[in-house]
Amino acid sequence: MSSSAALVSSDKVNGSAVYGAHGDEIGHIDHLMIDKKSGNVAYAVMGFGGFLGMGEDHHPIPWNALRYDTSREGYVTDINEDTLKGAPERPEGWQRDRDWEQRTFDHYGVPYYWI
Amino acid sequence: MSSSAALVSSDKVNGSAVYGAHGDEIGHIDHLMIDKKSGNVAYAVMGFGGFLGMGEDHHPIPWNALRYDTSREGYVTDINEDTLKGAPERPEGWQRDRDWEQRTFDHYGVPYYWI
Repeated sequence: MSSSAALVSSDKVNGSAVYGAHGDEIGHIDHLMIDKKSGNVAYAVMGFGGFLGMGEDHHPIPWNALRYDTSREGYVTDINEDTLKGAPERPEGWQRDRDWEQRTFDHYGVPYYWI
Repeated sequence: MSSSAALVSSDKVNGSAVYGAHGDEIGHIDHLMIDKKSGNVAYAVMGFGGFLGMGEDHHPIPWNALRYDTSREGYVTDINEDTLKGAPERPEGWQRDRDWEQRTFDHYGVPYYWI
């Protein structure tokens, strides 16, 4: 599939590189979390290598905080280490915890996926 | 992850069963096609076993033509064999062919994902 296509397979998104505002690769997309009813992609669960100075760590990032960069065939985000560290802690059952979701999207300053 | 959760991992959607209007299993989701910019799931590319009397065959079905059934932990659709056979033929480069996409969504009678 051409990189200029508007659609991408979920198989291909998983593993895509994510670049920070300064162009450095900060991690990759491990998998997506999809809203079953609407079919919106809610989160990209990102794996961060040494980004936080620890082993591979997974964090759900609002999909709206990523944008696709056709020239690099990867995603770009303004999220940095501080934003990530300050994000609301992920509770048990976060996949259906609208209160946590709202605080998280507010933290990252991006539109809710559920509206 | 609980089956009652609102969010599902893209890894888990792939392989999910799809049931027809009469409750019979007609196929499964092979993978999803995602609109890179909006993050909307555009299509579920379904694999049909003997449904059409041929070997495993893949067809992109508008995501809006599927609905999640929590009790069965799978998807349900009103699409039947006739609808599928009558669908617009998939051209080379269908992933960025808005004309084909429009005819396809019209055929299945579901709202466009790009509006």
